[in-house]
Amino acid sequence: MNRSNFIKNKLIDTRKHTEKICEPLEIEDYVPQPVVDVSPPKWHLAHTTWFFETFVLIPYFKDYHVYNDDFAFLFNSYYNNAGDRVLRPNRGLMTRPPVREVMAYRKYVTEKCLALIETLPSDGILDIIEIGINHEQQHQELLVYDIKFIFGNQPTFPIYGSGFDLQKEEEKGFLSFKAGLKQIGAAGEAFCFDNELGQHQVYIQDFEIAQNLVTNGEYLEFIQSGGYTDFNLWLSEGWDFIQKEDLKAPLYWFEKNGDWYNYTLRGFEKIDHSLPVQHVSFYEAYAFAEWKGVRLPTEFEWEVAADQLNWGQLWEWTYSAYLPYPGFKKAPGALGEYNGKFMSNQNVLRGASVATPEGHSRKTYRNFFHASSRWLFSGIRLAK
Amino acid sequence: MNRSNFIKNKLIDTRKHTEKICEPLEIEDYVPQPVVDVSPPKWHLAHTTWFFETFVLIPYFKDYHVYNDDFAFLFNSYYNNAGDRVLRPNRGLMTRPPVREVMAYRKYVTEKCLALIETLPSDGILDIIEIGINHEQQHQELLVYDIKFIFGNQPTFPIYGSGFDLQKEEEKGFLSFKAGLKQIGAAGEAFCFDNELGQHQVYIQDFEIAQNLVTNGEYLEFIQSGGYTDFNLWLSEGWDFIQKEDLKAPLYWFEKNGDWYNYTLRGFEKIDHSLPVQHVSFYEAYAFAEWKGVRLPTEFEWEVAADQLNWGQLWEWTYSAYLPYPGFKKAPGALGEYNGKFMSNQNVLRGASVATPEGHSRKTYRNFFHASSRWLFSGIRLAK
Amino acid sequence: MNRSNFIKNKLIDTRKHTEKICEPLEIEDYVPQPVVDVSPPKWHLAHTTWFFETFVLIPYFKDYHVYNDDFAFLFNSYYNNAGDRVLRPNRGLMTRPPVREVMAYRKYVTEKCLALIETLPSDGILDIIEIGINHEQQHQELLVYDIKFIFGNQPTFPIYGSGFDLQKEEEKGFLSFKAGLKQIGAAGEAFCFDNELGQHQVYIQDFEIAQNLVTNGEYLEFIQSGGYTDFNLWLSEGWDFIQKEDLKAPLYWFEKNGDWYNYTLRGFEKIDHSLPVQHVSFYEAYAFAEWKGVRLPTEFEWEVAADQLNWGQLWEWTYSAYLPYPGFKKAPGALGEYNGKFMSNQNVLRGASVATPEGHSRKTYRNFFHASSRWLFSGIRLAK
Amino acid sequence: MNRSNFIKNKLIDTRKHTEKICEPLEIEDYVPQPVVDVSPPKWHLAHTTWFFETFVLIPYFKDYHVYNDDFAFLFNSYYNNAGDRVLRPNRGLMTRPPVREVMAYRKYVTEKCLALIETLPSDGILDIIEIGINHEQQHQELLVYDIKFIFGNQPTFPIYGSGFDLQKEEEKGFLSFKAGLKQIGAAGEAFCFDNELGQHQVYIQDFEIAQNLVTNGEYLEFIQSGGYTDFNLWLSEGWDFIQKEDLKAPLYWFEKNGDWYNYTLRGFEKIDHSLPVQHVSFYEAYAFAEWKGVRLPTEFEWEVAADQLNWGQLWEWTYSAYLPYPGFKKAPGALGEYNGKFMSNQNVLRGASVATPEGHSRKTYRNFFHASSRWLFSGIRLAK
Repeated sequence: MNRSNFIKNKLIDTRKHTEKICEPLEIEDYVPQPVVDVSPPKWHLAHTTWFFETFVLIPYFKDYHVYNDDFAFLFNSYYNNAGDRVLRPNRGLMTRPPVREVMAYRKYVTEKCLALIETLPSDGILDIIEIGINHEQQHQELLVYDIKFIFGNQPTFPIYGSGFDLQKEEEKGFLSFKAGLKQIGAAGEAFCFDNELGQHQVYIQDFEIAQNLVTNGEYLEFIQSGGYTDFNLWLSEGWDFIQKEDLKAPLYWFEKNGDWYNYTLRGFEKIDHSLPVQHVSFYEAYAFAEWKGVRLPTEFEWEVAADQLNWGQLWEWTYSAYLPYPGFKKAPGALGEYNGKFMSNQNVLRGASVATPEGHSRKTYRNFFHASSRWLFSGIRLAK
Repeated sequence: MNRSNFIKNKLIDTRKHTEKICEPLEIEDYVPQPVVDVSPPKWHLAHTTWFFETFVLIPYFKDYHVYNDDFAFLFNSYYNNAGDRVLRPNRGLMTRPPVREVMAYRKYVTEKCLALIETLPSDGILDIIEIGINHEQQHQELLVYDIKFIFGNQPTFPIYGSGFDLQKEEEKGFLSFKAGLKQIGAAGEAFCFDNELGQHQVYIQDFEIAQNLVTNGEYLEFIQSGGYTDFNLWLSEGWDFIQKEDLKAPLYWFEKNGDWYNYTLRGFEKIDHSLPVQHVSFYEAYAFAEWKGVRLPTEFEWEVAADQLNWGQLWEWTYSAYLPYPGFKKAPGALGEYNGKFMSNQNVLRGASVATPEGHSRKTYRNFFHASSRWLFSGIRLAK
Repeated sequence: MNRSNFIKNKLIDTRKHTEKICEPLEIEDYVPQPVVDVSPPKWHLAHTTWFFETFVLIPYFKDYHVYNDDFAFLFNSYYNNAGDRVLRPNRGLMTRPPVREVMAYRKYVTEKCLALIETLPSDGILDIIEIGINHEQQHQELLVYDIKFIFGNQPTFPIYGSGFDLQKEEEKGFLSFKAGLKQIGAAGEAFCFDNELGQHQVYIQDFEIAQNLVTNGEYLEFIQSGGYTDFNLWLSEGWDFIQKEDLKAPLYWFEKNGDWYNYTLRGFEKIDHSLPVQHVSFYEAYAFAEWKGVRLPTEFEWEVAADQLNWGQLWEWTYSAYLPYPGFKKAPGALGEYNGKFMSNQNVLRGASVATPEGHSRKTYRNFFHASSRWLFSGIRLAK
Repeated sequence: MNRSNFIKNKLIDTRKHTEKICEPLEIEDYVPQPVVDVSPPKWHLAHTTWFFETFVLIPYFKDYHVYNDDFAFLFNSYYNNAGDRVLRPNRGLMTRPPVREVMAYRKYVTEKCLALIETLPSDGILDIIEIGINHEQQHQELLVYDIKFIFGNQPTFPIYGSGFDLQKEEEKGFLSFKAGLKQIGAAGEAFCFDNELGQHQVYIQDFEIAQNLVTNGEYLEFIQSGGYTDFNLWLSEGWDFIQKEDLKAPLYWFEKNGDWYNYTLRGFEKIDHSLPVQHVSFYEAYAFAEWKGVRLPTEFEWEVAADQLNWGQLWEWTYSAYLPYPGFKKAPGALGEYNGKFMSNQNVLRGASVATPEGHSRKTYRNFFHASSRWLFSGIRLAK
């Protein structure tokens, strides 16, 4: 299959998959933005479309007729170079256009993109379409997080359904690695983001890394042995965070009459001790490791060990800051805002989760969130 | 027509009218709560229904089957005596139940109430149904305010339609009244709220009151002569308020290339100088009066003059605090929370507005809002 | 004694008394502003001096040499007409000028004022000096409140000393008054503020008013019977206030091993049941009255009853909003900002307190604070 | 000189030097805490003393009599293991004990420590005294920052005096280094903090590093060419930061009639183009480097180059997160809270400043602040 065909099929599949994720939603579910980090599903549907329109169709589709002039303002996320935009905290106020019009916008833009691909465009144009596909895949994952957050904050805890279920984790001990110079980063033959590029050597000390994720059962022990009340286990900002937010367990956990429950996409359920613990912040992952007398891996250790590890259920917090690789260069123009400008005060997560779309994970992938984020599908792997 | 029939017809009309107000809405428009004071239309639909269920059906309908046990928690507003409730700022997060289920809930409760009326219930029960009707009428007016706010905060300014249009006001001079003891308050033969009751004498000094509301044209002069920049015209908290919010004109006013526009339910329009100025806070009304060298009336002056005045386009700010009349007594139980507990730090408005439902206005009516509120249908009448 | 002599002696006494209040302070105590409402003692010393310099010396003292050009900016409080000023929350940052220089500034300005009085100035000038004296007396009272707040927020609770002690209150029952037209307000022969002027008739209903203030003992009963946990007793904003601030007792009260203590200017002491309860907000006064099944008086009832009452220990909250009397006119220029611009969202207190300077109290005096204020010397008198 | 003597002399010098820094202060200057990061000078004087009392005297001085039982609560900073403490934002409210008593406390504790040293204590005890000395040296530097902040926020900009003056910087080009494995960290023979320990290999790519700091003149060019208005130069959080704080220049810079001035410890002065730019946040340092088309060094590059560089005027922002070195272990007990718990969301600065006490700088020293901090003595060195 040639590249055009590959991109075409991937585009079709990706656009469909986004809409499939939304199938269990009521129209009302598409609207709210309960906290600033959680965007309305409608906004994801429109923004991923705006991305193709702005970066592919407007520059490269001959005589392209913009679907609606207002949408550039409404659905730009953070690209300062692409003009003014609705302020992020106001996304939940936009009731118009309604969902059905966003769906029509999606259809229009998808069709134009497919028509453009039929013209056998240059590799440069295909590259941008491929970025658009990967961009939409990232939003697919955020969409699942955000739907779960919207549902999990309903007093009635509605059921979403299956499709993002976790598998059991079992205690399997640690793997050992010897110190030495290791190759880190992507060579760039296959698709990857700019933040992975620049394969380079890193010297790594001897280390051991766990073969499994921490389970709910182990995390419950941490809670029950006073983990959330012993300041010695916590980073200073982590301790302040759990005090201020009055946290006593992972997100979506609830205690009732001495038993622990959690909200999952399948509904309100008793905690299953054998599943990996999910929805922890970096701060909680750090404190858990302290309590165990071990530590979290660095992102480099993780990448070195990746081929020998079983990963992909949950994103794994590392104790590495999200910083540029040596020689990192931003892309020119608006796409240069994709990654580089976020390289401060965030932590790297490695791996993938059950919400990561197929074909969107690789061992060099650098995901990043603030240390206090909990609504993502995050988990804990230990190292020492 | 006997009282039962009267109440029955009024109930039917009122329930229908609420839904009619919502007809121009998309489902998405029912969801958001852009600021804490503005409730989602869906919430109004459900809360007015919950009121009948809680105060009429549950206590008085034999073997009443509650529509949904969760709704008491979801749709209680501020009645502490009626149990726990969703926190006010979180109303916009409730995507479930969807609108269609709220409509089914409305239908169920209306039918049960009508069935109860058919049983020829006691006057006491009819009294509570009548309170429920008046309660829903108050929410009809808020619903119009809130829809306008939701629409007026869309970057695309959608059109709602007609039905709440203002008429011209014309300069007609002041009417004079002589000092003396005047009767204030409602005698209580017809329906009224507890805060109007307790007819009593108030000694009033000589005063004059304008026969017309202040117009957009006059208010524009105030703006253009520097009204928003001269601290001497403002109450201290009013000055702080306009500084902090960076206000330069009434709500929904926008300056573009030296011309002034406003958002109305008919869309984005050029300011019409002959219409009464709308969407001003008490602070702005006060400053305007200072600028004119006059003042706002007290609520007592307004009531004394009411029969000789043309009113009903916009609620009129008075320079009276919302305080209890002599001998004021709260009703027992949850309904006692209706009015009395709000008697601090609010200003009385008198009259009615184009959004006030038919049959819901009278000269003794005491409306009340915080001095900084602007999203209500408020206007200015001068006195001296 | 002629007026010049009277003013001269009063000026000397007033200026001395301010400094006497500060005698027990360490230099360090003059600096902090623990909350925005509480000003540093040094600031009071300088601001009352600035008032004389700005409103008396600069306009009326021939060839007056301003003590320091910076001080107008540093020590203006809220007079917009008198130029820019240090923002209120930043008063506690001003370590310079040091206290000794403020004292020199005081001396300089006092001497110049006395010299001006020696020139036998016009009555108009003496009027302004008299305002300055009364202004300083108001600050003397605030100074006591603020010193108590600064001391009471030290972990070590330092002792200030005696001089502002309360006397016992005893249950004496209610006095009855008949309805009728009553004369309210000051005639203006003796000194009074503009907000008291405009003697006018008010029609008052039959009422009864307590002959004593509520005691600590009674208030403790209110606390112990669950007063702070029964929302039915509270105004809605009062309930929100005590929830948000987590209040369970008056300011400066502390529970330790089941006993109640309070911080007084004499130190940390066990609650004396026979003293009047002090440091309650209007909200708490209101809730206490609700609990007793009675109410607070209006400011008009209070004034009618004043001659038959024993008052002066603590300012007494009334259920009257601070609003202008009929025909109220602000003074022209900066002094017009003294009272009128604060006439929104404040409650009137009547009477006086042990911290009120001699000669500064009268039955027409209208003191005013926000309903949530607690650091003033406030108490509760009941009515029905 | 044996170790005891060395420590004894260093202790004497250090204790004296802290007090010398405070000589130009008025008593009033010791009190305020203008922002949460800036502590009152009095607090530094007492806290450094509390440190010796808590970690040296109480555990090791036989029959030690605590100076004042309250001081543990008043002057603990962030050591959770050492008991409750005054909340950080409230340090500026503590007017008591007065400065003279804090000085007496210092004297008492210094004498006891010297007496302890005379007993020829174990190396372990000397180690802790040495930590106390280094701890006090760190506070000496903070004291200078905080005094400058307190003075620089007085409307009258008082003069502190000389002693912390900067020298000219001159453009000297870049030094080049070859890629390779480098030794990083302290071996621990001489005193160092735990965060420097664990000498280890790091692989570093080819790099170049500037031989001089960026000057005010160069930074002014950045400002004048629109550096603070071009979002492409800024990290996303940096851009939000300068928008929110409305920043247009380094801290203490002021524009007046088109000229730039800054507040220095010598007073309010015209910007000297040849001095190194001071008081920039990491975000500003990053944006400046972007504007120049280069970057900031990593902390490892800095350490590799340190011996060939001229440093010590200002702390130099690196683009390295403050993270643990391989094998990092916290000390047991309260001293374990010294460094490790701050290892999140902070940036490393390397070098030293004119406010760093003599003998307190070394090339392995890892200083750390939040990316938005500006009141420290920070500057910019470029790399590529």
